[in-house]
Amino acid sequence: MKLLPEELDSLISRQKIIDLTTATIRQICGLAAEIEKYTNEPCIHLELGNPGLKAEEIGIEAEIKALSEGVANKYPDIAGVPALKEAGSEFVKAFLDLDIPPKYIVPTVGSMQACYTLLTLLKQRLDQKDTLLLLSPGFPAQKHQAKMIGMNLERFDIADYRGEALKNKLEEILKSGRITAMLYSNPNNPSWSNFTEEELQIIGECATKYDVIIVEDLAYMGMDFRKDYSIPYQQPFIPTVGKFTDNYILMISASKIFSYAGQRVAIVCFSPEVFNRSYPVVRDFYEMANFGEAYIYGVLYTASSGVTHSAQYAMAAMLEKAVKKELPFIAHTKEYGERGAKLKDIFKESGFHLVYEKDGKEEISDGFFFTVGYKDLSSEALQRNLLRYGIASISLPCTGSTKEGVRVCVSMMNTPEQFNDLKRRLKEFQKDEFCNSK
Amino acid sequence: MKLLPEELDSLISRQKIIDLTTATIRQICGLAAEIEKYTNEPCIHLELGNPGLKAEEIGIEAEIKALSEGVANKYPDIAGVPALKEAGSEFVKAFLDLDIPPKYIVPTVGSMQACYTLLTLLKQRLDQKDTLLLLSPGFPAQKHQAKMIGMNLERFDIADYRGEALKNKLEEILKSGRITAMLYSNPNNPSWSNFTEEELQIIGECATKYDVIIVEDLAYMGMDFRKDYSIPYQQPFIPTVGKFTDNYILMISASKIFSYAGQRVAIVCFSPEVFNRSYPVVRDFYEMANFGEAYIYGVLYTASSGVTHSAQYAMAAMLEKAVKKELPFIAHTKEYGERGAKLKDIFKESGFHLVYEKDGKEEISDGFFFTVGYKDLSSEALQRNLLRYGIASISLPCTGSTKEGVRVCVSMMNTPEQFNDLKRRLKEFQKDEFCNSK
Repeated sequence: MKLLPEELDSLISRQKIIDLTTATIRQICGLAAEIEKYTNEPCIHLELGNPGLKAEEIGIEAEIKALSEGVANKYPDIAGVPALKEAGSEFVKAFLDLDIPPKYIVPTVGSMQACYTLLTLLKQRLDQKDTLLLLSPGFPAQKHQAKMIGMNLERFDIADYRGEALKNKLEEILKSGRITAMLYSNPNNPSWSNFTEEELQIIGECATKYDVIIVEDLAYMGMDFRKDYSIPYQQPFIPTVGKFTDNYILMISASKIFSYAGQRVAIVCFSPEVFNRSYPVVRDFYEMANFGEAYIYGVLYTASSGVTHSAQYAMAAMLEKAVKKELPFIAHTKEYGERGAKLKDIFKESGFHLVYEKDGKEEISDGFFFTVGYKDLSSEALQRNLLRYGIASISLPCTGSTKEGVRVCVSMMNTPEQFNDLKRRLKEFQKDEFCNSK
Repeated sequence: MKLLPEELDSLISRQKIIDLTTATIRQICGLAAEIEKYTNEPCIHLELGNPGLKAEEIGIEAEIKALSEGVANKYPDIAGVPALKEAGSEFVKAFLDLDIPPKYIVPTVGSMQACYTLLTLLKQRLDQKDTLLLLSPGFPAQKHQAKMIGMNLERFDIADYRGEALKNKLEEILKSGRITAMLYSNPNNPSWSNFTEEELQIIGECATKYDVIIVEDLAYMGMDFRKDYSIPYQQPFIPTVGKFTDNYILMISASKIFSYAGQRVAIVCFSPEVFNRSYPVVRDFYEMANFGEAYIYGVLYTASSGVTHSAQYAMAAMLEKAVKKELPFIAHTKEYGERGAKLKDIFKESGFHLVYEKDGKEEISDGFFFTVGYKDLSSEALQRNLLRYGIASISLPCTGSTKEGVRVCVSMMNTPEQFNDLKRRLKEFQKDEFCNSK
């Protein structure tokens, strides 16, 4: 399979995609489906982060039980059902070694809703703090959320400021006083880099010094497989900025750690210090007592009036069993690490290189994502030409990266046939000649 | 049970409620719970619109089936699963006599999310159209949503402009050209008035004339029990503005019609004409082809990345069975009409009067809500003094009403004991003397 550039162009315009590099992931999925129809051959799907594992059975059982017991007719408590709040509190103690009482654990309709609603309130919290610092690269949807909310944005590529250099860069940006919050995912989507303890400490100390609230997206928590984080209540704990500052809010989604993306459930874990703060906007606009209640009863209430009742019980059960060592979620997701290692080898054998490759002195972990470049091809030329061979990916510019390359997601690579098929296509690709002008 | 004014004041301030008349429904629930703790007696809960019936079994069964078949690990299609889109299309044909193909049916996390996200986009659609016309009285949360989004608001009390008078009032407001959308629920929350066909025609024609998009909230569709709307594909159809203009978007929630509030699922039904429109913001800001795709892939995607997968199958099954006469949802919800009739009598016997009492020349229907006043007591004084007798309600000012009184929700009144208890308390209340200064 190899499309002519003109054929690809025509399929792109049929999908009404204006700019391939800024297209949403869903639009790339749509384009890949068009290519499959046109060529009558399956594409290799490296674009979408759908969990490639089965949903945790414990969640499904708990959800069916809750439905059978009659939760469907009752509005869920917007602050979360008690079982979920308690399980969330234990979970962060067991795996992150943080003390967050149940009151400060709040469910959301996935971390997507968590992020949108948190940014909404963080934009309002203090008039002079009108800007989000979005560490790059990052999940493209979060940039779009900030744009929807009308937040100003600052970004820089963390690869250019690792270690001690991070401190100077953060100080330079934060000293303006305009940054209300800093957002990143750890492990990083798309680069799969992980902050070192030293870097998390720098971020935490800067957050305290400049009154910046860290929104830490733990969508892939525990999936840095270089260390064994799988044993609850025991070192090493999963690294978090919460060890270095009180100015934090964590987002923990069931989507990837429990392969539960379909049910749209996550928890937001507030630092008690942040939850209990008061601001003029909290009193005057929301008529609430503190930041956390303004979030729950002011923002989340209007966003969806709470989270699907049965899904809250699913999440509660999965968190609880993880703490009790009855749901080894890190062992389950380790599968992604194995696929990642294999895929990296296949790409490297075909002349590709890793774009983001180190954390400090260590090589990055194998996991859900990695990033590749090819010779001196631009991101757009690489993404386009891979598509001509039926390989769908997303380009690094849409993640805020300043590097040239594409993101590879390993989750949909399930069978040996797929790996062989990819190998074949990349070998063909390697024989071809490309240039950066389309 | 009778609290002293000082006792009530102290409980109100313990709940950190700043102004009783503008407190959210959830805050009133919290206050009622405090009163129950303090007096060690149950309150009569007339404040919260939780469904008082069991969830439709068909929904629960479909949801359990979907979970068993493995939907939990897959991101739901943001545009909705095909089964739901098709069932929604048939449902609006069968009960509203509207032709809306499946493409234009989109699920949301309840109508709360639908309204928030629709207002977000409707605010952006044209620069000069920056104002929402919120017909009053209405659901307090929708006013709060408009405030969150930063929309300007126009309101008037529909009771003052019934029939032909509605036309002049609408013309007067719409001719400014600043109104992007008009929002109301029919049957009305809180007054339970219903627009006559003549009024819906006026609204529809004005919407077309002034390019205003009607957002019609059908949370209680079919619950005007004065007519029999229960037979699919047969007159009389449930009244909707969709018969009189192409400028409409409908919100149909499972919460009340199927007693499914816990699972947070609704559908948005776009007029195809509205869905297919293009605006500069659609192209430039969202990079999408039309209004509907900007809504789905631009707004809904960032709001929650879709709706709980299993809940979509529940909604699909319930809509489908309703169309096939296998789920007589109107007969099921008729229970609220019966409770409403009984409750109205009890209030009237104790010296109360209906605040909103007629649609045109007809008396309003008995249903989920009604509104009562007492002599010349102000809304606040009435709400406060009812609370002293352990009767919780919400006041009319928070619904945008210009009348004095409170809203009564019948849903939680399940047992003869509750009716007798209310009767007793109201008789005691009637013996008392009140004045409007607190």
